[in-house]
Amino acid sequence: MNPEIKKRRAREIDRPTWNIEAIVAELRDIRIKDHETREGPAKLPSRKILVRIMEGLAAALFPNRLGTCRITCEGVDFYVGHTLDVNLTELLEQLRLEFEFTSGAALIIDSPSDLAAAVVSAFAKELPKARALLDTDIRAAYDGDPAARSIDEVLICYPGVTAILHHRLAHVLYKLGAPLLARMIAEIAHSSTGIDIHPGAEIGESFFIDHGTGVVIGETTIIGKNVRLYQAVTLGAKRFPTDEHGALVKGGARHPIVEDDVVVYAGATILGRVTIGRGSSIGGNVWLTRSVPPGSTISQAQVRSEDFHDGAGI
Amino acid sequence: MNPEIKKRRAREIDRPTWNIEAIVAELRDIRIKDHETREGPAKLPSRKILVRIMEGLAAALFPNRLGTCRITCEGVDFYVGHTLDVNLTELLEQLRLEFEFTSGAALIIDSPSDLAAAVVSAFAKELPKARALLDTDIRAAYDGDPAARSIDEVLICYPGVTAILHHRLAHVLYKLGAPLLARMIAEIAHSSTGIDIHPGAEIGESFFIDHGTGVVIGETTIIGKNVRLYQAVTLGAKRFPTDEHGALVKGGARHPIVEDDVVVYAGATILGRVTIGRGSSIGGNVWLTRSVPPGSTISQAQVRSEDFHDGAGI
Amino acid sequence: MNPEIKKRRAREIDRPTWNIEAIVAELRDIRIKDHETREGPAKLPSRKILVRIMEGLAAALFPNRLGTCRITCEGVDFYVGHTLDVNLTELLEQLRLEFEFTSGAALIIDSPSDLAAAVVSAFAKELPKARALLDTDIRAAYDGDPAARSIDEVLICYPGVTAILHHRLAHVLYKLGAPLLARMIAEIAHSSTGIDIHPGAEIGESFFIDHGTGVVIGETTIIGKNVRLYQAVTLGAKRFPTDEHGALVKGGARHPIVEDDVVVYAGATILGRVTIGRGSSIGGNVWLTRSVPPGSTISQAQVRSEDFHDGAGI
Repeated sequence: MNPEIKKRRAREIDRPTWNIEAIVAELRDIRIKDHETREGPAKLPSRKILVRIMEGLAAALFPNRLGTCRITCEGVDFYVGHTLDVNLTELLEQLRLEFEFTSGAALIIDSPSDLAAAVVSAFAKELPKARALLDTDIRAAYDGDPAARSIDEVLICYPGVTAILHHRLAHVLYKLGAPLLARMIAEIAHSSTGIDIHPGAEIGESFFIDHGTGVVIGETTIIGKNVRLYQAVTLGAKRFPTDEHGALVKGGARHPIVEDDVVVYAGATILGRVTIGRGSSIGGNVWLTRSVPPGSTISQAQVRSEDFHDGAGI
Repeated sequence: MNPEIKKRRAREIDRPTWNIEAIVAELRDIRIKDHETREGPAKLPSRKILVRIMEGLAAALFPNRLGTCRITCEGVDFYVGHTLDVNLTELLEQLRLEFEFTSGAALIIDSPSDLAAAVVSAFAKELPKARALLDTDIRAAYDGDPAARSIDEVLICYPGVTAILHHRLAHVLYKLGAPLLARMIAEIAHSSTGIDIHPGAEIGESFFIDHGTGVVIGETTIIGKNVRLYQAVTLGAKRFPTDEHGALVKGGARHPIVEDDVVVYAGATILGRVTIGRGSSIGGNVWLTRSVPPGSTISQAQVRSEDFHDGAGI
Repeated sequence: MNPEIKKRRAREIDRPTWNIEAIVAELRDIRIKDHETREGPAKLPSRKILVRIMEGLAAALFPNRLGTCRITCEGVDFYVGHTLDVNLTELLEQLRLEFEFTSGAALIIDSPSDLAAAVVSAFAKELPKARALLDTDIRAAYDGDPAARSIDEVLICYPGVTAILHHRLAHVLYKLGAPLLARMIAEIAHSSTGIDIHPGAEIGESFFIDHGTGVVIGETTIIGKNVRLYQAVTLGAKRFPTDEHGALVKGGARHPIVEDDVVVYAGATILGRVTIGRGSSIGGNVWLTRSVPPGSTISQAQVRSEDFHDGAGI
């Protein structure tokens, strides 16, 4: 370093010297050994921009409730059209970044831009269907919770609705071949609600998660119509198949199938490619790794009351 | 669409055509069938503005700790008064939106503006009491956690304190007849802490939730003084009464009563209108659906050690 | 109040009078009785600024993935150096606030500024080591989750990675004597991920938490290499020793030791200063308060299928 600069820097009172050059060099050495540079520099999609896009798409789907301004009957279609226009354009750019990034890994034949345009177009067409599905979900939440006072309270307050709103859009992107954006959107919802739904999960209409914190729904889960889950329910994998080198086999159906009209109470854990038959009730804290026929009611072992060592806790 | 515009649009390279007009029309058709338009356009309270109001009110209650600037002894009352003034005015507008919205549902006789003014006035009068209660909660957190190094660490770091701060203010609004804002404030805290306290719950002084993620406290819960909960505790409803048409009966006492000096350890689930007697300890992961007398200690069945199928998990 | 102002205020239509002066006075009286004023006015570190600093440090550690702009091979070191410079300077100020604040409690001999400078300098030196450790964690996540499609998906999406990234930096600050900033950083991650790792916990390389919501790891926990946890796992304290006055003894080893190559499945609770021997598997929902030898596999009691009272739930 230039000695003159060094001298001046030493005179800065509030900003001591930290030898940043050495740290930069050490970090560079680590990056060179690391996976990151194997694939070269690139720009990944931005979570912050995706948060904004999701807010915009939600507002376009529910303009009178989630829109950002007071909308008249006359003005609502203008608002919806403009909001879609802006946010689909933003989404296009984020998709392009995903495809540009993964194309480095040679998975893609089309140009990232063309592919992104095709995906946005297909995605946009699915939006009315997503809105119609979400209406069934909101109605299910209202019908299923004695504390719900109005449809609108459900829409603007309930974390379960936030989670399924994100999921329904993320799932469309997942099926259109944009798994990275899909996962990022799922994690935006996970972060704000504590509900972790993999974008690969197939979920039927009238789906309701109450409270929701701690819910986990795995990638290959299939959920029928009119299913209700409570907080801390896990629909997970039981075992992970490995190949001859001991490495995990990626993908593969490994999560539960939950048929129509099932209720799963708080804390229940259902693992593996099992089927929960139509109309079943799975009790709180139940641990279940086998299929159950339609109409089953499953509960956990009863609690014993006994001596309790005072102070046992966390 | 004007053919000239169509041509120009086709020349936009980075912005392909998505036929937004058709999507807007489809979305309109869905809205017309839907509940949303039944009640006509309106503007709902804004979660983002409520987040800001809550930050402001917290700063007014704890100016030296949660205030946004360095405050002198001389200046503190000016800061508090100004911060109250600004944030109560903002709250007034949000309340007006709630009442305007629900007045469409004909539940309200007074004008939304008058009602909002009366509620803000009553709310403001309750703030000193809320601060005094919160001081007992913060002290309980400090006394109850061996990892707590100072009262101030507790106040600015602990999610349990964030949750009860939001709850104490939300509960005042709930009792004053503003259940929508109250619920929105509760969900702001739920989102940032994983602690879900319905604003209807009655909670006595010196209340502490440690760690907190996954805690659920239902609408009609009553909690005495000096109660401590750990993460993932549920104080919930056991069954939901339905009317002759099978629809849920809204409201109605259905959650536990927890008397003074009770501790509930992590993961315990207490359901129904049961009473947990004064001074009881409820052990981790216990599932409890009956009342227990004062001084009870309840633990779960002991775990068996046995063969374990490798790889069983999520 | 000046009567003229009073009159003018009464004419404000949208802003009724709330008698703020009386509320300010009541709040002042409460503060005077309270702990807060015992220590006088001060400015505490800012959570919002810490969020920004953590984003900056993460970008400096992973410039090509978490950086905010498209970075060329030539430009990357400039970006890293500048980002470090800016964020370490911001950190310096936050550290100064912590030390100034705690120096009021007479725990510190050096001047807050000198101490802050020394801590930032030592902290900066640890950054390359933190990056190298994080590379092992990211690799462990990729290897351990069949749903993970790429290293980069793991880095930018997985809440477990966000949590360990915050922890590795918070832990450095904790060991350097800045427990308040360390705890604030831990709570930033807790809020966004639902994963609560006390900054005091010692965690070896290749650590992976999947899903993560509800995980709690206590202050004196020690975790070896290549350990995997799932959601809602608690590594907590069993009992809290009290002194002769019944007050909690602060500090003291009270959380588990988890040796290398251990997997703990979802919902398991391990309490007290017990040792989980190398290579053990702890099954889902297990409640464990004793040590287990290396290679143990522990599962919970099997669930009974039985009559289930319909509607039992939350």
